[in-house]
Amino acid sequence: MIRTTFDELSTLLATILQKEGMDQTQAITCAAIFAENTRDGVASHGVNRFVRFINQIRDGVIDIQALPVRVGGFEAFEQWDGGHGAGPLNALAAVDRAMELARTYGMGTVALRNTTHWMRGATYGWHAASLGYPCICWTNTTANMPPWGTATNVIGNNPIVFAIPGQPQPFVLDMALSQFSYGKLETLRRNGDQLPYAGGFDRLGNLTTDPTEILTTKRMLPVGMWKGSGLSIMLDLFASSLSGGSPTVSIPTSEPNVSQLFITFHAGQDAQERQARREMVDSAIRAMQELCSITGEHFPFPGEGTLRRRNQSDEDGIYVHPEVYQGILELMGSRHSFAPELRQNSHIPT
Amino acid sequence: MIRTTFDELSTLLATILQKEGMDQTQAITCAAIFAENTRDGVASHGVNRFVRFINQIRDGVIDIQALPVRVGGFEAFEQWDGGHGAGPLNALAAVDRAMELARTYGMGTVALRNTTHWMRGATYGWHAASLGYPCICWTNTTANMPPWGTATNVIGNNPIVFAIPGQPQPFVLDMALSQFSYGKLETLRRNGDQLPYAGGFDRLGNLTTDPTEILTTKRMLPVGMWKGSGLSIMLDLFASSLSGGSPTVSIPTSEPNVSQLFITFHAGQDAQERQARREMVDSAIRAMQELCSITGEHFPFPGEGTLRRRNQSDEDGIYVHPEVYQGILELMGSRHSFAPELRQNSHIPT
Repeated sequence: MIRTTFDELSTLLATILQKEGMDQTQAITCAAIFAENTRDGVASHGVNRFVRFINQIRDGVIDIQALPVRVGGFEAFEQWDGGHGAGPLNALAAVDRAMELARTYGMGTVALRNTTHWMRGATYGWHAASLGYPCICWTNTTANMPPWGTATNVIGNNPIVFAIPGQPQPFVLDMALSQFSYGKLETLRRNGDQLPYAGGFDRLGNLTTDPTEILTTKRMLPVGMWKGSGLSIMLDLFASSLSGGSPTVSIPTSEPNVSQLFITFHAGQDAQERQARREMVDSAIRAMQELCSITGEHFPFPGEGTLRRRNQSDEDGIYVHPEVYQGILELMGSRHSFAPELRQNSHIPT
Repeated sequence: MIRTTFDELSTLLATILQKEGMDQTQAITCAAIFAENTRDGVASHGVNRFVRFINQIRDGVIDIQALPVRVGGFEAFEQWDGGHGAGPLNALAAVDRAMELARTYGMGTVALRNTTHWMRGATYGWHAASLGYPCICWTNTTANMPPWGTATNVIGNNPIVFAIPGQPQPFVLDMALSQFSYGKLETLRRNGDQLPYAGGFDRLGNLTTDPTEILTTKRMLPVGMWKGSGLSIMLDLFASSLSGGSPTVSIPTSEPNVSQLFITFHAGQDAQERQARREMVDSAIRAMQELCSITGEHFPFPGEGTLRRRNQSDEDGIYVHPEVYQGILELMGSRHSFAPELRQNSHIPT
C-alpha cells in the first residue's frame, strides 16, 4: 500500500481538479472531501472513485462550472437545481443552505435535483452535526436493486444519513439500503473476500455471499428484505417529487441527475438549550454503553468505526492501493507532465 | 371468528371509552382509530390491544384527561408535551399541528414527548397524506431489541412511517425496525405459526424463526442486522432529544413516556404545483410497475396490502378473534351491565 498524509493527498487531488478546470476554492473543498472519505476508511467513495469522478467530468456527465440554483419552495422549504454540478459541492451547498433556513425557522429542508453522486453521505452529516445541527439527508440512485419478491432492478440503494450533535463528537449513521454497499462489494472483490452474510442474488436467483456474483447480476439484497425494499421506494418518492427531480427509474447508471433531501434542525432558541439537548444525546448513549458493559459487552455507537479509522489515519497516515494511486497520478500524466515531487513525498511501506 | 362492521365495532369501542371517562368526541376519534387499524388488517394494534389500552387507563399509565401542551420550539419546529395522554389522540393532534405549520412554513415538525403508545403509526401517515401532505413520523419504544453484536436489550424497534400523496391514494410505509413487529409475533404465536425468516434469538443465543422463543427472550433481530441497529439508535436520539423527552433506555415496558417526531411538507405554493408532485409520484410508481410486468412480476407498492385488506373488510366485514371480542365485551361487564344489543348485532360465521 502507498502511505500518504491528508495534506499531501488533498493537495494532489486539488491540483488535478484545478487542472480539469475547477475553480480553486471549489477544487480545494472537493479534494478535501475525497481525502476525508479516504481518511475515514471509506476509500470506495474517496480515492478509489476519484478516477471515475474525473472521467465523468471529461465525459460531460459532471459539469464543474455549474452552480446550484434555487428554483422553488417557500420559507423553511426550498427546492434547488444542481445543474449536474459536482455532487460533493452541490450537497455541501445544500446542507449549508438547510442550516441557514433552520437558524431562521427552527428547521430547514433543501430538496436538490439534477445533482451528481455525493460520494459519501456521512460527509454532510458530520458537517452539519459538527456545527450543532441534527441532520437527516438522503439521495436516490440509479436502479441497482430488485424490490423484494422480484428480480427486476427498479429501486435504488438510496443511502440515508442521520447525524446528531453529541459530546464530544457527533453521532453519525450512514447506511445504504442494500445490505452491503457497492463500494463494500467492490472492495471485497478487490481483496478476494466473501461477504459475512448473504448480500444479494446470484445468476440462478439464489442468495449469495459472493461479491463478484452480486456485482455481475446487480441484484442486491435490500436491508431487512421487504422492509428496506419499501423504504427505498419511499426515499426515492420523497427526494424526487419534493425536489421536482428524477426518480430512480429515470436515472442512468452514470447518475447525472439524482435527487437529494437535506433536513436540518436548530432545536432550541439559545445556545444553552441546544447544549442541553447535546447532553441528553450523550447521556442516552452513555446509559446504553453502561447497560451493555454489565455483561462485558461493547455497545457500538453510530460513527464509532469512522472515528477509530480517522484517528488511526491521523496517527499512521492514509493508505492507498498502489493501482489506485497510480491511476490518480496518471490523471495528471494523461494531460500534463508528471509531478515527480508528489511521488517522492509518498512513502511506500508494507 | 366474530364478524362485525366498522360502525358496529367503533360504536362499541367508543361506548367503552366514554364509560371510562373519555370525552365523547375524543372517544369517537380514538375508537375509530382502533377500528380502522383492525379493518386495515392490523388487529395487533387494533382490537387485539384494546383491553390492554383500557387496563392502562385504569392503571393510570394513560391519562385520558390530559391534552398535549406546547412547551417549546419556534417557527416551523415545535415541541409538545403529551402529558401521558391517550397515544392515538396525542399523535393525531401532533400531526395535525405539523400540517398547520407546514401550510405557513412549507414544512413543519412537531416533536412530542411524554406520550403513550400510538398503536399503528400508519394511521398518522394515511391521515396526513390523504390531506395532501408528505409525512415522516416515528416513535421510540421501550428497550425491546439488542443492538447488533450484543445480547442486552437497550434499543427499541422504533416504528417509522413514510407517507406521500399519490393518485388515487397515498403510498404509505409503516415499518418497525425489528425484522418482525411484536404484534406480528403475537399473532403468529396465537395461530401456532413460525416466522418465514429468522426474526430474533432463542435462549441459546441462536437466530430462530419461533415467535414463542423470541417473545420469551425478547431479543429481536434488527432489520438488516447492524444497519437497523444503528438506525434504531438514531431515531431514538432524534425523537427524545428534539422533544426533550425520554430515550428508549428510560422508558418502562408500559411505555408511559415515549417520544415521537412528526415531519410534514407542504411542497408547492399552490394546488397546481402540489398536484404536479402527486402526478410525479404516481408516474414513478407506474414506471416501476411496468418494468416489473415485462417479466410477469408484480411490483409491490407501499400500502398495497393495507388497501387490499381495507377493501376486503369493507366488503366482507371485520373479523375479530372470539376471545378478543369477549374480552372487549367484558370491559363493559366488569364495571357496567352488558349491552345485549351489541352482541345480537354481531354475526358469528366460520
